Amino acid sequence: MTTLIDKLQWRYATKKMNPALPVPQDKLDRILEAVRLTASSSGLQPYEVLVVTDKALRERIREHAWNQAQVTEGSHLLVFAAWDNYTAERINQMFDLVNEQRGFKNEGWEAYRQKLLSSYPQRSAEENYQHAARQAYIGLGTALIAAAEEQVDATPMEGFDPAKVDEILGLTARGLRSVLLVPLGYRQPEGDWLVNLKKVRRAKDQFVTTI
Amino acid sequence: MTTLIDKLQWRYATKKMNPALPVPQDKLDRILEAVRLTASSSGLQPYEVLVVTDKALRERIREHAWNQAQVTEGSHLLVFAAWDNYTAERINQMFDLVNEQRGFKNEGWEAYRQKLLSSYPQRSAEENYQHAARQAYIGLGTALIAAAEEQVDATPMEGFDPAKVDEILGLTARGLRSVLLVPLGYRQPEGDWLVNLKKVRRAKDQFVTTI
Repeated sequence: MTTLIDKLQWRYATKKMNPALPVPQDKLDRILEAVRLTASSSGLQPYEVLVVTDKALRERIREHAWNQAQVTEGSHLLVFAAWDNYTAERINQMFDLVNEQRGFKNEGWEAYRQKLLSSYPQRSAEENYQHAARQAYIGLGTALIAAAEEQVDATPMEGFDPAKVDEILGLTARGLRSVLLVPLGYRQPEGDWLVNLKKVRRAKDQFVTTI
Repeated sequence: MTTLIDKLQWRYATKKMNPALPVPQDKLDRILEAVRLTASSSGLQPYEVLVVTDKALRERIREHAWNQAQVTEGSHLLVFAAWDNYTAERINQMFDLVNEQRGFKNEGWEAYRQKLLSSYPQRSAEENYQHAARQAYIGLGTALIAAAEEQVDATPMEGFDPAKVDEILGLTARGLRSVLLVPLGYRQPEGDWLVNLKKVRRAKDQFVTTI
């Protein structure tokens, strides 16, 4: 049995993917399901995931992502896109869904709804977007582990022009802003300068302090 | 065998922990190791994890964390604290460590070092901190899965006064700013209003779009 530690050792930011090997649908579905189930602040899930398979769209995105080849060499490009703001409508939708699924109204939960309604929508859109974007990184951490569990390679990317990607995918009209790109595919060791290099992390005593 | 999906279904933001059941050291060590190994932007790992076991310190932190009981009812409190800035020194330390561990200098890697050195330290400390803080959320996503793998409960918390926690733990002097609290422990189902309620997430078609 493979442990989480083994999976984290196995994964790396793949530099060269094999364009002839697509990720099977069932593996993709389990990766997305893990992201859907993971934690987010107040359970609001303030982001969406776009799965771009269209080659022409990915070619255009690649132009605005430092021409990183994995964007088109992988079979699927995940785009994590955060809410551009927390609105009363978005907050209410989530709280209503919770009540509907649980079949009852919980008093503490309703008080918590009011607390969010009286604070989030009053903050600036930018502050709210920044908070939502952080939640997408929980999704990223989850996606990388989920991909490793499926022995699918993934390359997390911040290096792209979000405004251009928003434009290409029509995200602004949907109240979303692109935060992260994650091509999924299979490593092609020939041509990948990183695949055989040691994973380097700070020593535990430089990373963890016990008090 | 338990899948990642099962683990994500099992976990929840535990509201009541059993103070009589401490998390064993070997489980704690594997959770921290998973966080140490997880991804971060450019591999910089721009945050640290403080493991607070001292009861008096946790009592003080709890006062500035909406009095959330898990802070002291759990056996360990993880504090994710991000770098307050990206400095040339911090960037060079990581690139030097990589060269040392791999035993050679890679030309592309050195060019990448120069690219970061010519951009990150010129940005504002606040912009750099915000970027570092996002990376801590990858660590959070990883920690929650690692805890679930160990059948350890965890409660991610953003609801606290970071300036007060920084002061209590002396983080400012270390160039760190607290971002997230994560008490670890074991659920005490009696007294936990959330433990038996259904986990609610948006339906897949409200979360994922395929293009």
